[in-house]
Amino acid sequence: MPELIAIATEAAHQAGKLIKDNFGSEKTVNEMHRRDVKLELDVRTQQLIADIILGYHADHRILGEEEGDVGGDGDVEWIVDPIDGTVNYFYGIPHFCVSIGARVRSTKEPLLGVIHDPMQNETWSVVKGGVPTLNGKPISTSIRSEMSQAVVTVGFSKSKSALDAGFERYRRISYEVFKTRMLGSAALALAYIACGRLDAYVEEQISLWDVAAGVMLVEAAGGKIVTRDSTVKPGTMFICATNGKLDIEPYL
Amino acid sequence: MPELIAIATEAAHQAGKLIKDNFGSEKTVNEMHRRDVKLELDVRTQQLIADIILGYHADHRILGEEEGDVGGDGDVEWIVDPIDGTVNYFYGIPHFCVSIGARVRSTKEPLLGVIHDPMQNETWSVVKGGVPTLNGKPISTSIRSEMSQAVVTVGFSKSKSALDAGFERYRRISYEVFKTRMLGSAALALAYIACGRLDAYVEEQISLWDVAAGVMLVEAAGGKIVTRDSTVKPGTMFICATNGKLDIEPYL
Repeated sequence: MPELIAIATEAAHQAGKLIKDNFGSEKTVNEMHRRDVKLELDVRTQQLIADIILGYHADHRILGEEEGDVGGDGDVEWIVDPIDGTVNYFYGIPHFCVSIGARVRSTKEPLLGVIHDPMQNETWSVVKGGVPTLNGKPISTSIRSEMSQAVVTVGFSKSKSALDAGFERYRRISYEVFKTRMLGSAALALAYIACGRLDAYVEEQISLWDVAAGVMLVEAAGGKIVTRDSTVKPGTMFICATNGKLDIEPYL
Repeated sequence: MPELIAIATEAAHQAGKLIKDNFGSEKTVNEMHRRDVKLELDVRTQQLIADIILGYHADHRILGEEEGDVGGDGDVEWIVDPIDGTVNYFYGIPHFCVSIGARVRSTKEPLLGVIHDPMQNETWSVVKGGVPTLNGKPISTSIRSEMSQAVVTVGFSKSKSALDAGFERYRRISYEVFKTRMLGSAALALAYIACGRLDAYVEEQISLWDVAAGVMLVEAAGGKIVTRDSTVKPGTMFICATNGKLDIEPYL
């Protein structure tokens, strides 16, 4: 039986191949919300991932963004986002990824995280107590501690209330930092922080599957995560992730 | 003698290879401004492009972002941005491109435009009167005419005065559209509009070399360009590019 990280990597790569092969073709839209889209391919990709994991461990539990949970009642649960950055994917912007995390079900202790960008062929990976990697090479967060040198990504466009809450924060941050970016994938934002490309990420309204793997990567790479319950949408989180050196708190 | 578009494509691909080969390595910074960075590699890449063009046509003129103009006094001038998205490049974010345009020197009539993203291996290309292409396939702008369906990129982070001017505009636009993005390359923003990935791009403070090729692509692909003198920095432009269907004017 392969180790869990090998299973996660296999699932992420197979899912990545599926979504890359379908990139640019006509999409079946399951739901189109005011600022979000859900694709039939999201569901199909999540099923592919679940099939691979459950093929090895039928007792594991899969928590997915799409279509609810599947699997058994064992003490490992997987947190899957089959396409993180679905809007980018749908519009043809080549910046999205597969995000797969696993944790102990009873204690919520993180076990592993894998994020795979099929367009750049980049795979971030971490296991509990291990060194995080990008395509097999060890990574760490940036050493930038000055706001004036920092590139920061701020997300707040999922709802009107998130926009309201996020705007003044975004304005405060923008005046201080080197550049702001809005790239459209929460998981890749965290992966980019883990390998030193971005210095911080602030998002008003985020769900567990968006960030489960990325949070583990950032923390293992020397970064710092602050989460709290979102004030704009119950059941979602506010998250601030940094490289561990940048003091962005005064501007939040 | 190859046609001008073949020369432009050769130059863009060779420049793209040079910057991709150096991506992720230590960079020599020539100048670091408050919200911009200039790299030694910018200069080297521009020289490579100029050498290729002047190797075929010694009388052509090269207008470059870096180090002033070179070449002869013939009636073709080339407008070159060797690395558009330099901040992304410097920080390790794989979203940047080479932008090369050419026009008649006396009349300013556009002749061709080539934009090359070496990380995704994508090349947008257009010649006067021709059909614009992405990797050889014809492209056109999106058909989205509703703000509520549009993905719009707004740039305004080059200076404090651009931030001041851009913020309220950005807020107005954000409430109306499906999503906003800030990806960090003006030329790729225009290329993405030309092939239907983005629906509009608004930037407060932009220079000719950032947009020369992209403007020609957008117009040939069915889009619409509005430019005017920037109110925040003399010598730069305000630009609004759309797919040709979206009426974003009321929100500017």
